[in-house]
Amino acid sequence: MAATPADVMEYPTSYVFVVDMPGMSNGEIKVQVEDENVLVVSGERKRDKEKDDEKEGVRYVRMERRMGKFMRKFQLPENADMDKISAVCKDGVLRVTVEKIPPPEPKKPKTIEVKVA
Amino acid sequence: MAATPADVMEYPTSYVFVVDMPGMSNGEIKVQVEDENVLVVSGERKRDKEKDDEKEGVRYVRMERRMGKFMRKFQLPENADMDKISAVCKDGVLRVTVEKIPPPEPKKPKTIEVKVA
Repeated sequence: MAATPADVMEYPTSYVFVVDMPGMSNGEIKVQVEDENVLVVSGERKRDKEKDDEKEGVRYVRMERRMGKFMRKFQLPENADMDKISAVCKDGVLRVTVEKIPPPEPKKPKTIEVKVA
Repeated sequence: MAATPADVMEYPTSYVFVVDMPGMSNGEIKVQVEDENVLVVSGERKRDKEKDDEKEGVRYVRMERRMGKFMRKFQLPENADMDKISAVCKDGVLRVTVEKIPPPEPKKPKTIEVKVA
């Protein structure tokens, strides 16, 4: 199972995972959460089936592009909100955004009114 | 200058060059012919400038995706038609098609009418 390059960024309110997936469209990519906190991105890349293999008489002169199944796993931090995950694929790049759970609000100091006795 | 993986195929009537360019759209890729028979594909890949760098407080946790300028050159065969080159980019994959110059038609055997003397 091949890997594919990824960037991981942390923003003040979210984590973003950017994965290169040239030649793959939205429908061919699977984004899942495993074991409660593992983000799994997977898919299968096929060599332009409809265009190349059906034509007769094609000869591959050079084959550098990696094909086949691939998968990437990312451990999500404790403050990742598993219910707020979104994914978009554009120009062969997948971008998964995981929102952070907001930190608990600091307790406001309680003001006690002092009455003059 | 980084390279990017490519496939080269020969069809009965054309040559096809397929180059992985995740994250790049049509306007960012340059396809040229140099020295009469060298196909040059070039461009510059930038790290999601508009999305990431402008936001404040971003921290890169992982950076595997290669960025920057890249170029690929392909020597075109003698029968490639430099006037019939087309290029399309979809899902981060560029596909350049170069038509072949049709081979000269075989000379038809000349029939000489034989007259009966």
